[in-house]
Amino acid sequence: MICEIVCVGTEILLGDIVNTNAVYLSRKLAEMGISVLRQDVVGDNNERLTEMLRQALERSDIVITTGGLGPTADDITRDKCCEVMDSELVLNEKIRNQIESYFVSKGLKMSESNIRQAYVPKDGIVFENNNGTAPGFAIEKNSKCIIALPGPPREMKPMFEEQARKVLEKYSDAVLVSHNIKMMGIGESAMAEKASDLLENENPTAAPYAKDGECFLRITASGKNKADAEKKAEPVVKEVTERFKEYVYAVDEDNIETVLVKLLKKHNLKIALAESCTGGYAAKRITDISGSSAVFDCGIVSYSNEIKNKILGVNKDDLEKYGAVSEPVAKQMAEGVKKLSGADYAIGITGIAGPLSDGTNKPVGLSYIAVSDGDTTECIEVMTGRKDRDYNRYVNASRAFDLARRKIITRYEEQEEKQ
Amino acid sequence: MICEIVCVGTEILLGDIVNTNAVYLSRKLAEMGISVLRQDVVGDNNERLTEMLRQALERSDIVITTGGLGPTADDITRDKCCEVMDSELVLNEKIRNQIESYFVSKGLKMSESNIRQAYVPKDGIVFENNNGTAPGFAIEKNSKCIIALPGPPREMKPMFEEQARKVLEKYSDAVLVSHNIKMMGIGESAMAEKASDLLENENPTAAPYAKDGECFLRITASGKNKADAEKKAEPVVKEVTERFKEYVYAVDEDNIETVLVKLLKKHNLKIALAESCTGGYAAKRITDISGSSAVFDCGIVSYSNEIKNKILGVNKDDLEKYGAVSEPVAKQMAEGVKKLSGADYAIGITGIAGPLSDGTNKPVGLSYIAVSDGDTTECIEVMTGRKDRDYNRYVNASRAFDLARRKIITRYEEQEEKQ
Repeated sequence: MICEIVCVGTEILLGDIVNTNAVYLSRKLAEMGISVLRQDVVGDNNERLTEMLRQALERSDIVITTGGLGPTADDITRDKCCEVMDSELVLNEKIRNQIESYFVSKGLKMSESNIRQAYVPKDGIVFENNNGTAPGFAIEKNSKCIIALPGPPREMKPMFEEQARKVLEKYSDAVLVSHNIKMMGIGESAMAEKASDLLENENPTAAPYAKDGECFLRITASGKNKADAEKKAEPVVKEVTERFKEYVYAVDEDNIETVLVKLLKKHNLKIALAESCTGGYAAKRITDISGSSAVFDCGIVSYSNEIKNKILGVNKDDLEKYGAVSEPVAKQMAEGVKKLSGADYAIGITGIAGPLSDGTNKPVGLSYIAVSDGDTTECIEVMTGRKDRDYNRYVNASRAFDLARRKIITRYEEQEEKQ
Repeated sequence: MICEIVCVGTEILLGDIVNTNAVYLSRKLAEMGISVLRQDVVGDNNERLTEMLRQALERSDIVITTGGLGPTADDITRDKCCEVMDSELVLNEKIRNQIESYFVSKGLKMSESNIRQAYVPKDGIVFENNNGTAPGFAIEKNSKCIIALPGPPREMKPMFEEQARKVLEKYSDAVLVSHNIKMMGIGESAMAEKASDLLENENPTAAPYAKDGECFLRITASGKNKADAEKKAEPVVKEVTERFKEYVYAVDEDNIETVLVKLLKKHNLKIALAESCTGGYAAKRITDISGSSAVFDCGIVSYSNEIKNKILGVNKDDLEKYGAVSEPVAKQMAEGVKKLSGADYAIGITGIAGPLSDGTNKPVGLSYIAVSDGDTTECIEVMTGRKDRDYNRYVNASRAFDLARRKIITRYEEQEEKQ
């Protein structure tokens, strides 16, 4: 079954709001095995909306609209959906009463225009709105289905989950499951090349993606039901995880910081951070995770040589001789914060985030990342080749988390395997 | 002039990524007085993309695409744009060399498929990509214009600003200018009420917005040219800034951290940070700003009582007696990091970001924010009433920056005015 999503609202076309409804519905429909062929946005304009709905119904089996169900004159989705489906609007007394009670409960007076929202398609399924006033609906006719949902996400999402989903389920003939195998330390092209045999598979499919200094392969299987799809995906996920063993940091986890925090918790370890170019970004990402206080309690942002020396104990001569962006400084930062905090592991990050150079002849995008466990301190040099400050800072923090992850696994998990 | 935005990418239709390119381009085009009639999203599919581009060119004068310019076989935008505009692709040696150097600079090997990206339309204007490998382009023919931009926002945005904008400017017939008057410490409804007379104006318009613990009034004027539009906007901006004097922290600045960093630079001051619940987020936001090292060099993330005591010198008895989330602790954190760093101003932030409680009977969303200048330490209590961790952390950092801004202005600028 083929579906199109039509979002109605001039405010989207003016760039005032991000169209998060489209991404939400697309994801839900993909999970249900309903293919979304297009997402369209159109303004509150009679002719253009009619044209768009007619064309969408020609191309697709299902059209889902969001927005334009409100009480004002420019809310035209209700009328236009009826028009293109040869239906008509009738007053629904129950909805009328619900709208009235909604206003009473909020201590507000209902305006006459709100009654417009109580008109619903004569031959449609009505979706009550438990989080606002505008009801939604579905009209099914001549093997086509149109579903109209309200625009505000907090009304649209529960209406989709609780009511529209039931209507859509009968159009779904397959269930899709996806698994993302996430990697660091390999580029997208190299990953795609090494997985080229898999990229041609039809079920499950394998698709390469790259984002913010890492990349992932998504394995998507289609099946009669969830269990069947999972069964098809499993061997390929296993094969990819094995083939890319030295790069894979997680399957399906949100991000590397979540993986690191879980790993630290598992082994009852604490980590400390000493940051220069990332300026608190690494600490922010660790503490984004609720409950991270179990594994992290000390971060130092040392944004000058003076503070690096004074608080972290980085050697003044080394700062002079090698510069702030150097391996000895990264190592001493990690070792310094480890001593200061008493943590089991410590990270030191120093680099040139850009966009401007730091006044030395070192290139923007260069950084040194060190991880210490007290016994040894490892350091890697990272060169992103970019002048994008935000990108460089993000990637430096990610690479630091991955380096710590590898060091912990080498000590705690590979040792176990050998025993 | 009428424009459509066509975003190409199966990953958008699968709901994997939010289409932020569409909102960005819509906003920029609105400012240029170019009407966006539709935003469309289509997958990496030859037939469907061709159909969509042909229809868009029939309806509109300008079509802007994003995505599908990469090196792999499913990147088809380049080819399809040429096809519908009757152009052809030719190898551009300069771009080819640039792509090669890009890979060399990253220490990577260029794969054969990357050379596809060096093919550009024969009769088009080429946009070099300074943040990635795929060039963009514009083709203008028979009063129609198609512009192709890369998909990753960090490549697309600068290419639009620096190169595509110039091509588009000649299609614009009215110019809009907007000014955002940004406020903290007043809610959106209260702001709208106090500005109700202005909200009905037609040119300039005034529109209220709320976002992440602050709100702003956007004044938008339309004129024959930029100067004319600016002239219309000016008196209203002045009137609003005056009327909301006690809340306004900036006009048109990106955010409160930019305002604070500029203010610190202006008075040659340094600030230090001691963070608990924000966990590095405040430091991250300050160091997001290139050049912030002139005003900031020391941030301490003290995520446990032990670290608060050991590094910042917060009194153990006070931690016991008042709890970590309290006014005395916030003040001592600010004073502690001030002493440690030698900065002129220092911030202390402690709170319960949520979503879970901290095990005391204090509510999630409560925090104490202190600012010290060495002579006095002020503290405010903030209660967001929300359990949203990211929101609470963001708002706490913002309120801290605003408190510091007010304290600096009171000392350095109001004094000057009086003299």
